[in-house]
Amino acid sequence: MPIQDALAELSTLLGQRLSRSKSDLDLHGRSETYFPVTPPDAVAYPKTTQEVSELMKICAAHAVPVTGWGVGTSLEGQAMAFSGGVVVDFARMNKVLSVNQGDMDAAVQPGVTREALNEELRATGLFFPVDPGANASVGGMASTRASGTTAVRYGTMRDNVLGLEVVLADGRVIRTGTRARKTSAGYDLTGLFVGSEGTLGLITELTLKLHGQPEAITAAICAFDSVDDAVRAVTDTIQMGLSMARIELLDAETVKAFNAYAGASMPECPHLMVEFHGSETGVAEMAEGFGAIIADHNGHGFDWATRPEERNALWTMRHNGAYAIYNARPGWKGLVTDVCVPISRLADAINETADDLTASGLYGPILGHVGDGNFHSVIMFDADDKAALDKVKAASNRMVERALAMGGTMTGEHGIGVGKLPYMAEEHGQGWQVMGAIKQALDPDNLLNPGKMVPPRN
Amino acid sequence: MPIQDALAELSTLLGQRLSRSKSDLDLHGRSETYFPVTPPDAVAYPKTTQEVSELMKICAAHAVPVTGWGVGTSLEGQAMAFSGGVVVDFARMNKVLSVNQGDMDAAVQPGVTREALNEELRATGLFFPVDPGANASVGGMASTRASGTTAVRYGTMRDNVLGLEVVLADGRVIRTGTRARKTSAGYDLTGLFVGSEGTLGLITELTLKLHGQPEAITAAICAFDSVDDAVRAVTDTIQMGLSMARIELLDAETVKAFNAYAGASMPECPHLMVEFHGSETGVAEMAEGFGAIIADHNGHGFDWATRPEERNALWTMRHNGAYAIYNARPGWKGLVTDVCVPISRLADAINETADDLTASGLYGPILGHVGDGNFHSVIMFDADDKAALDKVKAASNRMVERALAMGGTMTGEHGIGVGKLPYMAEEHGQGWQVMGAIKQALDPDNLLNPGKMVPPRN
Repeated sequence: MPIQDALAELSTLLGQRLSRSKSDLDLHGRSETYFPVTPPDAVAYPKTTQEVSELMKICAAHAVPVTGWGVGTSLEGQAMAFSGGVVVDFARMNKVLSVNQGDMDAAVQPGVTREALNEELRATGLFFPVDPGANASVGGMASTRASGTTAVRYGTMRDNVLGLEVVLADGRVIRTGTRARKTSAGYDLTGLFVGSEGTLGLITELTLKLHGQPEAITAAICAFDSVDDAVRAVTDTIQMGLSMARIELLDAETVKAFNAYAGASMPECPHLMVEFHGSETGVAEMAEGFGAIIADHNGHGFDWATRPEERNALWTMRHNGAYAIYNARPGWKGLVTDVCVPISRLADAINETADDLTASGLYGPILGHVGDGNFHSVIMFDADDKAALDKVKAASNRMVERALAMGGTMTGEHGIGVGKLPYMAEEHGQGWQVMGAIKQALDPDNLLNPGKMVPPRN
Repeated sequence: MPIQDALAELSTLLGQRLSRSKSDLDLHGRSETYFPVTPPDAVAYPKTTQEVSELMKICAAHAVPVTGWGVGTSLEGQAMAFSGGVVVDFARMNKVLSVNQGDMDAAVQPGVTREALNEELRATGLFFPVDPGANASVGGMASTRASGTTAVRYGTMRDNVLGLEVVLADGRVIRTGTRARKTSAGYDLTGLFVGSEGTLGLITELTLKLHGQPEAITAAICAFDSVDDAVRAVTDTIQMGLSMARIELLDAETVKAFNAYAGASMPECPHLMVEFHGSETGVAEMAEGFGAIIADHNGHGFDWATRPEERNALWTMRHNGAYAIYNARPGWKGLVTDVCVPISRLADAINETADDLTASGLYGPILGHVGDGNFHSVIMFDADDKAALDKVKAASNRMVERALAMGGTMTGEHGIGVGKLPYMAEEHGQGWQVMGAIKQALDPDNLLNPGKMVPPRN
């Protein structure tokens, strides 16, 4: 058995850091969503790039699949080893290697989480802004091209990774990018690996852009009579050139779930949560401009949170959005959708989605990063009821079709994994075949996270 | 002869829009720099994507090389057809197809120039910010991943192209990206084609991000005693979080050239040219902050240009920088270097370059986009003197080595073309082989701009 031979060699390489315990395999066979548990054959915990390279060479020699693993918070089953083989858990490669204050960048290992990174950065006056909600590893965030609440101001992982070290399918180690802020030196390999979900290589180091902690921050929450009013307030704000650091929409159902989860008493109507970063006067000016815009759109109950503890309460509430919704249907599972549309179509997309869910008799509160046109519905269902899952998947399918028809994308930030693979041909057409050709060129034996991202091989 | 057969078929396809006139061939065999004229076999002027696709199929059937052409302003010989074949000039595909004000994006053909695009956008309150100086075509700008004076605020072409339509080497047409502001849907093909210099496909349409014309703009020029002082003022400004829209450095030699070219009388010492975009109060606040910073670094002769005509004069001067330097050595040619380093190393990089040029007896004024760490020396030489060119190339070579040793890149914005090909292995290591594998996968017969970008085939 090739797998047994490979595992024997990997044990020699890694010792106790090659785990085959049932609990470890089960843990690494789970995802955050509704997919069935699919344990790999082994879990490896490398400590160095050299070990990852050796591991990859052993697996290549024995044709054993290799799937990277950060902290397991991806939402589309990206890290599930459907073909078995070895899961590479980067938990032991979680160091901040260097911080360059003058250049506002940092070299980090893939296993460091965004919260741990920001904790280490606190005294420097710098921070890493990408915030997908979950305390994900930065390697995982790069692999799925994560973004979240702050992307409207600071960009996604695409914009905040300067360079990578990557172990290729044959064990070679490459470095992409440099520490320069921009480059025209050849194909953008950094951009190619970001978002490739471990199908082209294993990320073993990242050079990240950092940003200055803003002098002043202010946040606010505001209620609206309708989603239309809230979205129009957002589009006006963008058109006016007010630079929001975050702008989040919660629909009435999400607010109800919050109230129940946290014992709060917000008015049960759509809300916007917004944050501005800048100088004291800049933030005050933006806040004033935003206040005028929401007044034009029947905003009410406007409440500023200027103190850090108030802001933390606000964003903790937002980050607990999915949990509040799960809490509303104890014992059920949630399918988290993730479409992104041109902002001019956002109100239509949300309203049509809400109407569809209601007509389908489904419970699916809507919330999202409306500054980017990206929103989610967490559609709940009884996992013991096969028909219920089919109905939820059909509704999710209609959301994707609607987004594509509006010039949007099936996924703003969660990525492809297993859940979105059926839509790749439709969104990309012949471009999907181009992705397959790139995969074939870089991973001819289909070792890296096989069965994901690209068309099946003949 | 395969080429004759191909040209006969192309004539049938394009009629008079397949040109073989000597003047046209010569024109398309020229570059902006010192490379010898290398006329192609024919120049094609397609009007539609369909024609580009048919052209590509004919050339593929006869193994005829195809090289894209915008307006010929690239600086490293990117569009020179060294292997002959057909140059595809996109001059007849120069329309703005649609402008979506609500979404702040536009669909354009590759042949439209950035000035023509901004002229069409003027009434919309939006603009396309990427400004490489030359009035380049947006297709060419995407192909070389151009940037320029405004990248420090608005990003490069990498950041401002949402999606592309591309004709592949076999004539297939793909669309990359969507009109959504962000996506996690698979490999970033948009990012892969941007900067690929026509070696992976021909861009036939671009969806571009637009930005709101700022409410207020102010610009200034300021003199310094040394390059060190000027660069320290820039790094302090970045650290303070002041958002500059442009920040340009001119060394004393560049100022001397300006004075001679334009009959000006600026003090012959290093200068910074800066511009701020924002609200009236925001711009005033940034200007005040910047004023305090330059005072800390012995800045003097600080002069604000708030009126549009003053600003235009300032940036026209900057954009004429290279011409002013050419003018200082009539009849000579210039080799324009383009390194980019981490900003903490910028003063060292510039000072060492200036010392090196002086020690080598070369005339090479230095100017650049210091907010990104990107600078140029225009090194002049007598083109009739072979030894002079060798000496200039050796100095340029040392600039690249210095940039790489500092963690930077050989090219911040001009790209690879012919001039930088010798450094690809050194900057990218095994990553260059990965680029070669991608090229092989997408253009197996090596038809698209052959001899550029990737390692030679065996």
